[in-house]
Amino acid sequence: MTRTDVNSLGEFGLIDHLTRDLQTLQQSTIHGVGDDAAVIDIGDQYLLASSDALIEGIHFDMMYTPLKHLGYKSVVVNLSDICAMNGKPQQILVNIAISNRYSVEAMDELYAGIKLACEKYNVDLVGGDMTSSPKGLVISITALGRVDKDKIALRSGAKEGDIVCITGDLGAAYLGLQILEREKQIHIDHPGVQPELDDHDYLIKRLLKPEARLDMIEQFAHVNLVPTSMIDISDGLASELFHIARSSDVGFLIEENGVPINMKAQEQALNFKIDPITCALSGGEDYELLFTIKPEDVDKVRFMPDIYLAGDVLAASEGVKLSTKGGNIHALKAQGWNHFDTNA
Amino acid sequence: MTRTDVNSLGEFGLIDHLTRDLQTLQQSTIHGVGDDAAVIDIGDQYLLASSDALIEGIHFDMMYTPLKHLGYKSVVVNLSDICAMNGKPQQILVNIAISNRYSVEAMDELYAGIKLACEKYNVDLVGGDMTSSPKGLVISITALGRVDKDKIALRSGAKEGDIVCITGDLGAAYLGLQILEREKQIHIDHPGVQPELDDHDYLIKRLLKPEARLDMIEQFAHVNLVPTSMIDISDGLASELFHIARSSDVGFLIEENGVPINMKAQEQALNFKIDPITCALSGGEDYELLFTIKPEDVDKVRFMPDIYLAGDVLAASEGVKLSTKGGNIHALKAQGWNHFDTNA
Repeated sequence: MTRTDVNSLGEFGLIDHLTRDLQTLQQSTIHGVGDDAAVIDIGDQYLLASSDALIEGIHFDMMYTPLKHLGYKSVVVNLSDICAMNGKPQQILVNIAISNRYSVEAMDELYAGIKLACEKYNVDLVGGDMTSSPKGLVISITALGRVDKDKIALRSGAKEGDIVCITGDLGAAYLGLQILEREKQIHIDHPGVQPELDDHDYLIKRLLKPEARLDMIEQFAHVNLVPTSMIDISDGLASELFHIARSSDVGFLIEENGVPINMKAQEQALNFKIDPITCALSGGEDYELLFTIKPEDVDKVRFMPDIYLAGDVLAASEGVKLSTKGGNIHALKAQGWNHFDTNA
Repeated sequence: MTRTDVNSLGEFGLIDHLTRDLQTLQQSTIHGVGDDAAVIDIGDQYLLASSDALIEGIHFDMMYTPLKHLGYKSVVVNLSDICAMNGKPQQILVNIAISNRYSVEAMDELYAGIKLACEKYNVDLVGGDMTSSPKGLVISITALGRVDKDKIALRSGAKEGDIVCITGDLGAAYLGLQILEREKQIHIDHPGVQPELDDHDYLIKRLLKPEARLDMIEQFAHVNLVPTSMIDISDGLASELFHIARSSDVGFLIEENGVPINMKAQEQALNFKIDPITCALSGGEDYELLFTIKPEDVDKVRFMPDIYLAGDVLAASEGVKLSTKGGNIHALKAQGWNHFDTNA
């Protein structure tokens, strides 16, 4: 019998392979696999449903991840998927598996973070289960939300001539991770040495305690803006651009000057001898929003805080390209995190 | 700092501890943690949402669990929770984490089972994610369903004087597990010996390929029956009786003669020198329904196939009791699976 390694397909390739022949049996199913959240008809509105797992040793390292932050982040990354559909989250279900290395007090910390995120985002924890795991901690969360039918933003709606926008700033979480990994290695090699994290508050916070951009969804509603397409930036800008390019059958020209990168991230990237744009394109875990708008809507976002115009939607034949600060045009390649590269 | 072992609380105790102070912020949240599924108002109907994880080494053993069966079962156990609210499932989201011990072909098998269950129960697979795990296979599934508002069956609706009903038969899956564990041990001790499973098709099938009782929900609708309370029997009859007793503030008198146990299960229990009623009370994984009805509804179920009248709802002060075939009355204790007993 043939044995094909999952690494040969990668995460997205494997999902495509396994779900390629799915059929829809229920009338209420509007969109299934292939966007940030599933879209289900509930009458006046659409229900949005998204589910993601965070796994110890893959998505987080207990050596430098406080449990309260982890609980908060595990909720936020799921709420971010609801926001990416231009929706508002309302409920979450939380499945947790723990090895008996974890105490009741540790779970109290984890849940304190989960509850804090629920309060902040006005979301109810309504279910899930708790079980033991042979090894480590697994957190699997499902977020449910709503969106008015005429407000939904899919990955598939971008059109040639639309304008590309990005919220917040990119690459900082990736650099926060590099710093924590460096200090972890120093701690392993020299157990007495204290970690040097003081100057890196912003970068580390971006990694350990990200936020979902629900504030942006509220701003869009305020100015009556519906993005033509949207996705959350969880795997690096390049990967998300390719998702929209594929779903919308378009290409992109992104201006390096238009990609927002925080000053702290720029400095730290240079310290690590990495080009800052590389952190934005291929880093990950920013949980910002990448979206496209009609040209006539530009004035609605031009003076909105924390939104950056980053380029143009092109025809699909143009591919996905970056116009660098130096004036060169580079074709981008889809990258993003590929968790199957890890050893097991 | 104090360190409290999670085993000191158990699964249900830990969930109670962590969710005791939850508040509801969204008007659409009708019932949160504490029933088989969360209940969310979507206008004309209620949306039901339930989420459960199956973890290698805790909930299944790859030595005797075919991946296709595992995929099927992982869907069914979640659909069973929707049925237990008197609802019909419509969509599922599937999160899977795999170590790189698993091949693409193995995932094809798992998904073949998932898709088979979706077809059988008329449910759409609409989302989820796929990631790697440092060890073993984790399957976390969320099921979404609907129920008419006047048809919902909660754990909290049983009243003194109601009649207790059980679908199908109990204890067989537990005995199937004992047989597979015995044959596994023989195989480990004597690698050349072939397992003796021929006579145990029914018991093993009950463990490896259970069904959700959606057929019962359809029968209830046909005769216009709404159970006063309902729960699915996943952790053994005794544990489920205590859940309803606590939520409804009632007691129970169960007749041993009324608890359905398949002839094959009776025979095998005696071979193992276990009292068959113990398998039904404390076994688990039957995925049958335990429900209560008003006395005037008895005629609606009396001639319905595969439903058994098993006792009466009493006042809470009476506790949960079993009337044995020998005519004795025993007080029952809550047991059920406690996955935290496993080592990690």
